[in-house]
Amino acid sequence: MSRNILFIMCDQLRFDYLGCAGHPSLRTPNIDALAARGVRFDRAYVQSPICGPSRMSFYTGRYVRSHGSSWNNFPLRVGEMTLGDHLAPLNMRTVLCGKTHMAADTEGMARCGIDPASTAGRRIAEGGFEVWDRLDGLHPTGGKTPSHYNDYLRSKGFGGENPWHDWANSAEDEDGNLLSGWLMENTNHPARLPAEHTETAYTTSRAIEFIEQAGGPWCLHLSYIKPHWPYIAPAPYHDMYGPEDVPPPVRSDAERTAPHPVFGAYQDLRFSRAFARDEVRDRVIPAYMGLIAQIDDEIGRLMRWLEAEGHADDTLIVFTSDHGDYLGDHWLGEKELFHDASARVPMILVDPSPAADATRGSVNDALVEAIDLVPTFVEYAGGNPDHPALEGRSLLPLLQGQTPEWRPVAISEYDYSVRKVREVLNQPVQDCRMTMLFDGRWKYIHCEGFRPMLFDLREDPDELRDLGDDPDLADLRAGFHDHLCTWARAPHNRTTISDTSVMARRGGELRKGIFIGYWNETERAEALETGESGN
Amino acid sequence: MSRNILFIMCDQLRFDYLGCAGHPSLRTPNIDALAARGVRFDRAYVQSPICGPSRMSFYTGRYVRSHGSSWNNFPLRVGEMTLGDHLAPLNMRTVLCGKTHMAADTEGMARCGIDPASTAGRRIAEGGFEVWDRLDGLHPTGGKTPSHYNDYLRSKGFGGENPWHDWANSAEDEDGNLLSGWLMENTNHPARLPAEHTETAYTTSRAIEFIEQAGGPWCLHLSYIKPHWPYIAPAPYHDMYGPEDVPPPVRSDAERTAPHPVFGAYQDLRFSRAFARDEVRDRVIPAYMGLIAQIDDEIGRLMRWLEAEGHADDTLIVFTSDHGDYLGDHWLGEKELFHDASARVPMILVDPSPAADATRGSVNDALVEAIDLVPTFVEYAGGNPDHPALEGRSLLPLLQGQTPEWRPVAISEYDYSVRKVREVLNQPVQDCRMTMLFDGRWKYIHCEGFRPMLFDLREDPDELRDLGDDPDLADLRAGFHDHLCTWARAPHNRTTISDTSVMARRGGELRKGIFIGYWNETERAEALETGESGN
Repeated sequence: MSRNILFIMCDQLRFDYLGCAGHPSLRTPNIDALAARGVRFDRAYVQSPICGPSRMSFYTGRYVRSHGSSWNNFPLRVGEMTLGDHLAPLNMRTVLCGKTHMAADTEGMARCGIDPASTAGRRIAEGGFEVWDRLDGLHPTGGKTPSHYNDYLRSKGFGGENPWHDWANSAEDEDGNLLSGWLMENTNHPARLPAEHTETAYTTSRAIEFIEQAGGPWCLHLSYIKPHWPYIAPAPYHDMYGPEDVPPPVRSDAERTAPHPVFGAYQDLRFSRAFARDEVRDRVIPAYMGLIAQIDDEIGRLMRWLEAEGHADDTLIVFTSDHGDYLGDHWLGEKELFHDASARVPMILVDPSPAADATRGSVNDALVEAIDLVPTFVEYAGGNPDHPALEGRSLLPLLQGQTPEWRPVAISEYDYSVRKVREVLNQPVQDCRMTMLFDGRWKYIHCEGFRPMLFDLREDPDELRDLGDDPDLADLRAGFHDHLCTWARAPHNRTTISDTSVMARRGGELRKGIFIGYWNETERAEALETGESGN
Repeated sequence: MSRNILFIMCDQLRFDYLGCAGHPSLRTPNIDALAARGVRFDRAYVQSPICGPSRMSFYTGRYVRSHGSSWNNFPLRVGEMTLGDHLAPLNMRTVLCGKTHMAADTEGMARCGIDPASTAGRRIAEGGFEVWDRLDGLHPTGGKTPSHYNDYLRSKGFGGENPWHDWANSAEDEDGNLLSGWLMENTNHPARLPAEHTETAYTTSRAIEFIEQAGGPWCLHLSYIKPHWPYIAPAPYHDMYGPEDVPPPVRSDAERTAPHPVFGAYQDLRFSRAFARDEVRDRVIPAYMGLIAQIDDEIGRLMRWLEAEGHADDTLIVFTSDHGDYLGDHWLGEKELFHDASARVPMILVDPSPAADATRGSVNDALVEAIDLVPTFVEYAGGNPDHPALEGRSLLPLLQGQTPEWRPVAISEYDYSVRKVREVLNQPVQDCRMTMLFDGRWKYIHCEGFRPMLFDLREDPDELRDLGDDPDLADLRAGFHDHLCTWARAPHNRTTISDTSVMARRGGELRKGIFIGYWNETERAEALETGESGN
């Protein structure tokens, strides 16, 4: 029996928009069923609350400061090891079906003489994945990567220059005029496609097609682009929920009074100003919920198929997201800051091993990070997750009911240099950096050039009171600052040699015939006899 | 006229073992003549006081924490850009004649499908250099890299299994018995070879052979392995200096009383215990001086040849070293800690451009780092030194008499995880890290897991009084600690995109047809009209 991995990711799915996570109105029975079969990690954080950097951390198992791709489409430098590099020596294929947001370091590849058309070149350019179907949303064909989605739509009779936009992500009015899904006013309409031909259904079907012919072992990254923008759902999902199902916004007037400068500047971005309006929330959030409901149905379809094919017992299943969505909470839209709505994600793992039976259906509150998945997969595939490039930890011991000492804080980073916020705050490009440290109670956010933010999630679970300048908490903040600096000082780039190998090198000079510090033959002979160089 | 670069490096040459640097007895007229033709930078520091990491910083233009190769033979990870990568697009060949201490990331190369026999593969495996002659000392043939030196020796009648050791680095007694140069007792004898066939002369001759046939433009790294161990000089250099020429050791009894734990552990290593003995200093240092005198003569020969060939006016010349040598100062041998004897190096640049005439013969006290050479070379070759991977600054403005605002501190790092010191101090491998910050007066040395060291070079130029626990200087140390942490937090790995390019990306969403935060067509049309996304 081959051991496979099904690595499901949604885009922009909040941690709390699932039935099993306590959403008051949204129903996700199929995802809930995964949680019942496995472990739901309730304190999982991404390494950066935005697509590209978050995904590069998911795929490399490294913090953003380590892999360096700190914003969407900042190329992942050639040489960074990815999931595919870690799994290939374990004879596991790593395959993509859906979105990655990967931007290749084409200059670096050219410099290293890597032919983009070679096997290695194709894999490096795709973040370590063998591409079964890449679907990054906008420009799904004709761009940097292959996808069959537009061709598929055309084959089904949904034509035009960009069927992705005109059919899957648009609606139409009574007169047949196109209503773009980009415009939030339109999101109460159904998409122009039947649900079975939308991205979510297409991607699921393509995943099934892969597994059908794959043999094994494989690690399949099934990566849905929804419920990310454009927020437009096909029937019947478009009106499955209404304004009455929208939870009230988590925000307070106090948040608009003398906010932290970065928070204030974010409140003033277009997407935040939009989501501060109830009209927008009431129009968009039902569509967002409908998109999630569709994903849930598709996961149900996939799970039933897997079970029928006998894969339920040999496949590690992960369900997660690359970041959340403010949806108007804290007067913000999109993501990018570190409130739970943005930086915390769903994280459900189903380990079919008998050793994991004891934890099925449980909720685990360990501080889990996105970078933990690569070592988890490596260990599941039979490898050693202690690779010097990997900065996360395997979750398998937690799945098997062990309680190892765990990390004291989860860390997430964000670089706002590409945002208008940089101009508003007049920050140097290199200093547009924020780093979150969360210890399970306190969330400390270091902002280069500004005071930190600080939230006490025990007393203020909604994160409405920024204690970043509370004089009584100066020592607490100093402790977090110290932790941050210790982490930043750590060797994030010594990736080519393991600690074990470092230790084994002591005495290597003698073995190589290098004799440093010896006066005469007597001293040398003694050292060779004992094997102790004294250095 | 082509513009060439001659990048001369010695191995283990202290900053103060040159006539022009004020040595009381050593004569180096040819190197002094370079200083008279150019600028001598009197406060130049290497990025790590040990061969491999220091050289990887010289060759990448990046701090050790950035390139990750923190000890000898820790492979330089594939993808790190080197001098050769920066100069190739400027149509300059980057060529090696001598030592690099490069260890290739063969696993990474295999992972990326880089054929070690391809042009790119050979260059990547050699730290970016095209190898004319690599001579790393011990095992000069049969090891990982080609060198012709042993073949050369054999062709001259100096045979045996390892002519490098048996002839160039050994002496013989009256009965013809071999006296190994590794053993310091033997270093008052001459090497068994005439001077003209030793490594220093051979490497110089090979450099001349390269230039003779090279055309241009070229950047030639002429990299002498001497005066590094084994300390054995050929006649007449072996007795050109005697114990009477050896400067007194810079050390104090107080240094042995309750030293900083790392300093104390280093004092106890074999090479330090050896150099604490006057007998060793008096035997070894004259040989060390003789080796330098030979280098000086060879540089004189090379300079006369260059002048005769008309290269004096088209070649930027650099003379430097990869680190120093304690030679018993501070009760230490070798290097690895941060006293000036170890971390400070000679740094002479001769820029033939008329713009540099004004500074000829001057001494510049700017805080120069090894990583400044790559940007200097890039600018000299006509390129833009503002590459995102480069962390140093071009020295050309200083050579041309400009006085730009300069860095406030020089930074150097060391990783003692491979040393016995780790075991003695029972430190985790990842925490065997020290970082020096020197601001021109104060030298602060952060030691992970221990108190810092601190020296006031204005009041205590010999660095004999460690003020690392002086309660009166707590604020000063806190300031340095803060500077260290700010530096560590900086984005050292965002190497694939420049600040300029980051700024140009603002508004890129609109250009790509991504519309985030728009309610209706009116808003979208206005944004398209003004080009301002509001995000």
